[in-house]
Amino acid sequence: MKKSLGPKTLLCPTPVVLVGTYDQAGKPNLMTAAWAGICCSKPVCVNVSLRAATYSHRQIVRNQTFTLNVPSAAQVREVDFVGMASGRDRDKFAELGWSAVPSELVNAPLVAEVPLCLECKVVVTNELGLHTQFVGEVLDVKLEEAVMDQAGNLDPVKFEPLAYLPDAKLYLGLSRVVGGGFELGKELLAKKAL
Amino acid sequence: MKKSLGPKTLLCPTPVVLVGTYDQAGKPNLMTAAWAGICCSKPVCVNVSLRAATYSHRQIVRNQTFTLNVPSAAQVREVDFVGMASGRDRDKFAELGWSAVPSELVNAPLVAEVPLCLECKVVVTNELGLHTQFVGEVLDVKLEEAVMDQAGNLDPVKFEPLAYLPDAKLYLGLSRVVGGGFELGKELLAKKAL
Repeated sequence: MKKSLGPKTLLCPTPVVLVGTYDQAGKPNLMTAAWAGICCSKPVCVNVSLRAATYSHRQIVRNQTFTLNVPSAAQVREVDFVGMASGRDRDKFAELGWSAVPSELVNAPLVAEVPLCLECKVVVTNELGLHTQFVGEVLDVKLEEAVMDQAGNLDPVKFEPLAYLPDAKLYLGLSRVVGGGFELGKELLAKKAL
Repeated sequence: MKKSLGPKTLLCPTPVVLVGTYDQAGKPNLMTAAWAGICCSKPVCVNVSLRAATYSHRQIVRNQTFTLNVPSAAQVREVDFVGMASGRDRDKFAELGWSAVPSELVNAPLVAEVPLCLECKVVVTNELGLHTQFVGEVLDVKLEEAVMDQAGNLDPVKFEPLAYLPDAKLYLGLSRVVGGGFELGKELLAKKAL
């Protein structure tokens, strides 16, 4: 039996990303976002939504670029801190002892300590209400070699993905690798259609 | 040491959703999508991206409504099948023995067997390239009572969230509770700023 909950931000899992920007003084900053994802395969685009009140929002509007830095579950304390502190009065890179690496492609910093980084330039801005959705074309993806499998793909055991469950406000990690996409459904696909 | 991979659709985890629509004959249909997420808290909006070539794309364009049905990891075979078969020549609801429940709010079907359903009306359409991104305002969220915790929130152990890892094409289960959002970072937040 399902219960009607009204409109609420409940979809799971959501990714957890650290949005990298430079402020007007050139100081690198990060904020945590979970309203984000992939939205186009060609050109490769991602989307991330920020409230206009955040310090990072104005930097993206001005620079029209950002990075998405995807942390592992082992970095959850840093991630949660980044989501609570504001770049207006804190230097989050310095406080965490993290290194802001200038991107050669966009005017935004990469986080050296985070295993997966995407360099993005804004191609669409959607004012949706409380949040502005920025769609960014991905100019490059940089992945730590230590978290790759033998085929060069991201290994979800070496790099435990971190997700967020809105409603219950919980960070989630990997319970298991369930199986292969475009593989597990083959038996059902091969059945004679009704 | 990070390796540059060029632009690729690598962000993790992505959610896995079953997009519900009616076709022109009124037949309920589903497709699997992983390019999806939450994009605004007020009004509550979600986004999902579909290729124009898919059967579901044209139904959303015509009806301007859709549902997102969020399956649990236990339903991964059905999910993968739904992602490989087309509603043009298959009746996926009938083949799976699933029930399409008419929504009272939008012109799209809900999946009775899936624990979390969102009813959405299109508010923005972004033609990004290979994919069209539909932003839907969420009119209602319906959650199975059996997967709720005592506070009425989605319990990620009772309902193991299913994620997709693009690159390696793996389905992941994400039931490991890492900790609380706006909790784990408090110690770092309380430190004296540098």
